Amino acid sequence: MNLGKVVGTVVSTRKEPVLDGIRFLLVRLVDTDGKETPSFVVAADAMGAGPGEMVLTAAGSSARQTTMTDKKPVDNVIMAIVDTWEVNGETKYTK
Amino acid sequence: MNLGKVVGTVVSTRKEPVLDGIRFLLVRLVDTDGKETPSFVVAADAMGAGPGEMVLTAAGSSARQTTMTDKKPVDNVIMAIVDTWEVNGETKYTK
Amino acid sequence: MNLGKVVGTVVSTRKEPVLDGIRFLLVRLVDTDGKETPSFVVAADAMGAGPGEMVLTAAGSSARQTTMTDKKPVDNVIMAIVDTWEVNGETKYTK
Amino acid sequence: MNLGKVVGTVVSTRKEPVLDGIRFLLVRLVDTDGKETPSFVVAADAMGAGPGEMVLTAAGSSARQTTMTDKKPVDNVIMAIVDTWEVNGETKYTK
Amino acid sequence: MNLGKVVGTVVSTRKEPVLDGIRFLLVRLVDTDGKETPSFVVAADAMGAGPGEMVLTAAGSSARQTTMTDKKPVDNVIMAIVDTWEVNGETKYTK
Repeated sequence: MNLGKVVGTVVSTRKEPVLDGIRFLLVRLVDTDGKETPSFVVAADAMGAGPGEMVLTAAGSSARQTTMTDKKPVDNVIMAIVDTWEVNGETKYTK
Repeated sequence: MNLGKVVGTVVSTRKEPVLDGIRFLLVRLVDTDGKETPSFVVAADAMGAGPGEMVLTAAGSSARQTTMTDKKPVDNVIMAIVDTWEVNGETKYTK
Repeated sequence: MNLGKVVGTVVSTRKEPVLDGIRFLLVRLVDTDGKETPSFVVAADAMGAGPGEMVLTAAGSSARQTTMTDKKPVDNVIMAIVDTWEVNGETKYTK
Repeated sequence: MNLGKVVGTVVSTRKEPVLDGIRFLLVRLVDTDGKETPSFVVAADAMGAGPGEMVLTAAGSSARQTTMTDKKPVDNVIMAIVDTWEVNGETKYTK
Repeated sequence: MNLGKVVGTVVSTRKEPVLDGIRFLLVRLVDTDGKETPSFVVAADAMGAGPGEMVLTAAGSSARQTTMTDKKPVDNVIMAIVDTWEVNGETKYTK
């Protein structure tokens, strides 16, 4: 999984019909200190994530293993909202 | 999903027979400001996307989760045309 | 899909038995102008592609969606030979 | 598979229900000498790995081929704890 | 597929039980001239490859399309040992 921060929303009205009702969020990947990197993905939001929240995203066929994304053309999903993480015993982020 | 801009078309007459009728578009990936990057993919067009349009593409097995691409040797598909997106509350693109 | 140029052949006699008869080609990825990049893949040739031809390759499980590669340990396939492509209305390559 | 070192833990209470009970570890990728690189993944821990341990991780759909991760939105799993490795006959790491 | 050179072995006793008996090799990727690059993968050895041999590796779900790796948490497999390859008509490697 990737660790990222929700920074925006992508809106699309013309899309595959099965995608109706799915919210697409812009998630900027962060490093282990929580600093934003230039990399980002657009992920389906299975969690109701809000702007600024740190999340975990799953890619590829694993992105379709939620009720919301099952059998849909979606290759990235937010499957968890992060409370906290630590590296070498040091807390790097707390919600 | 990746965020990209339709910049061209790839034409092929000699191809796997199941690919007949599928349009292949050149999609240049963009950054969160909408600026073109050097990266690009060739994607099957499930949406009837036109030149210059901003689109979302899905990769891998997720690219086969549309009626047009089902069970076909296609690893990238345009599954949505983007109307608008915002980053940190600021609109970065509007169609 | 990736856009690439067939530049060579890889020969192997000791391989998974199901791979017998499959030709493995060296495909160097090109940029949108058709210029060769340092990146390359080894792809199963489902099309009878010849040296110097521009091709499209599909990766991952999508590489197994041809009769030749079905259920085989192959993660890259040439599924189309390119006739021509254009970028922003300008023809960049013609066979 | 990737070779990595367990350096931290990611905690999430709001997540896909099927992920309850799965521990998510921060795994920093290492080079063949065992030196840490800037790259990292968040992986489901199928092995009970501890901090500082060298592990192997499997990505993509292969990450779901364990009892713990089967059919779940998980794209990276720790499937082995490394005892030792050698490169060109020289031991580079021993637990 | 990737073209690589077997440079080492990874030993693990604590691992997913289904992985018992599978040998994990360190494969350093090479460029089209056969020169080693800094990139490497750890691959399951379906071929009985020896140190210094040039091999082809398949990644992702394709890595599970061998009898040895079927339904196992393995995302990279050596599925062929290379005899020779040529680029633009010039032999770059012969075993």
